[in-house]
Amino acid sequence: MSTTVKALVFDVFGTLVDWRNSVAKQADELATAKGITIDSFRFADEWRGAYGPSMNKVRSGEIPWTNLDDLHRMTLDKLLPSFGFPDLTEQEKTHFNKAWHRLDSWPDSTPGLTRLKTKYVISPLSNGNVALLTNMGKYAGLPWDCVLSAETFKHYKPDSEVYQGAASILGLALDEVMMTAAHKNDLKRAKEEGLSTAFVPRPGEFGPDVPVDVTSEDYIDVYAESFTELAKKMGC
Amino acid sequence: MSTTVKALVFDVFGTLVDWRNSVAKQADELATAKGITIDSFRFADEWRGAYGPSMNKVRSGEIPWTNLDDLHRMTLDKLLPSFGFPDLTEQEKTHFNKAWHRLDSWPDSTPGLTRLKTKYVISPLSNGNVALLTNMGKYAGLPWDCVLSAETFKHYKPDSEVYQGAASILGLALDEVMMTAAHKNDLKRAKEEGLSTAFVPRPGEFGPDVPVDVTSEDYIDVYAESFTELAKKMGC
Repeated sequence: MSTTVKALVFDVFGTLVDWRNSVAKQADELATAKGITIDSFRFADEWRGAYGPSMNKVRSGEIPWTNLDDLHRMTLDKLLPSFGFPDLTEQEKTHFNKAWHRLDSWPDSTPGLTRLKTKYVISPLSNGNVALLTNMGKYAGLPWDCVLSAETFKHYKPDSEVYQGAASILGLALDEVMMTAAHKNDLKRAKEEGLSTAFVPRPGEFGPDVPVDVTSEDYIDVYAESFTELAKKMGC
Repeated sequence: MSTTVKALVFDVFGTLVDWRNSVAKQADELATAKGITIDSFRFADEWRGAYGPSMNKVRSGEIPWTNLDDLHRMTLDKLLPSFGFPDLTEQEKTHFNKAWHRLDSWPDSTPGLTRLKTKYVISPLSNGNVALLTNMGKYAGLPWDCVLSAETFKHYKPDSEVYQGAASILGLALDEVMMTAAHKNDLKRAKEEGLSTAFVPRPGEFGPDVPVDVTSEDYIDVYAESFTELAKKMGC
């Protein structure tokens, strides 16, 4: 497997960065600054929970292309009053909406990517927009070679155009590109489109009370429990 | 100036990498392997010379969107026989066409970019395609935060869409983005579109016998003789 792969492309939310603790922490900080108390994990879960449905509005054509920053903002404008926040200034809302640009990585993400980068092209292939992924890369120390996003292709995963587009724009055959994710649905779609696949499960993504299916599947080419283990399995 | 700029975007061919010596060296190596002798600098100059006219066919709509690898290949297929090369295999031609992915950087490029990266988002904004720029970045040690290309916007510089698109996709105001180049025409267009500008002239780009205009202009915000000097002027 690893002899034909030339690029690894990565899901980010959950796979490389811990969105739940990072967003909850920032929501707590904002609540404290505004003199209120909130259930910040529920805030993070509800913000993230609107992600799929809002993207599906774009994927179905119900609304025109809208990047993830703008979809996050549409959700945020509903969430803030429902959690009892007082009115925020536009500047405060813009800054807080970029909480998704300031997510902490899992401890093995940067060491693993740094090793993988010595032998492969590494890029996100995420539904996050280019600015979000670029800023997150700098914030979390993810040493990308380039940044590929749903926004690059004006289609959200799991649309075919994202997987096909990644191989095409990298100038590679489909199976020379390895989709790497903590989510089986992403990997199943990538394999259906002809990409190679690596599964790095993140049992803690949704918090300690939400079990995650960490078993392998026949559409998974490489299984690793961390990005440092993945680097080792990929010969780095 | 430097207090409002948040991202620097860079021309690459000539500005960051020495295309002329790098392509000539690879042409010489191929000629030697094929048992012929060529004027390798003329080869490099003619290959590069077809760049503007071939892009203009795309810009004018004469041919549909074609990325730079494919434009380079169209030129190469004419150049090889005219320089007396024997027939090459498809694999040899594909590999040699990627000479433009393997260009050496000027000595100050990587040190300057590394310093600028500590304070700003840094990205190419080049007519090179994404694969070319990504591979060149790895080959030449250019530590990009992301890779923006004409291909991202399906327009070649100096079309407006490239400059406007760079600011938009980075989520920044136009003057928060600084176009950085060794070529005045690129900077003049960037300033007309509202971007900030930095000029780093490269007197040796076209060889020792071709003079380069290194004087500043009123549309240039920052002038530096190297990327390390630019880093210093930008507070890094």
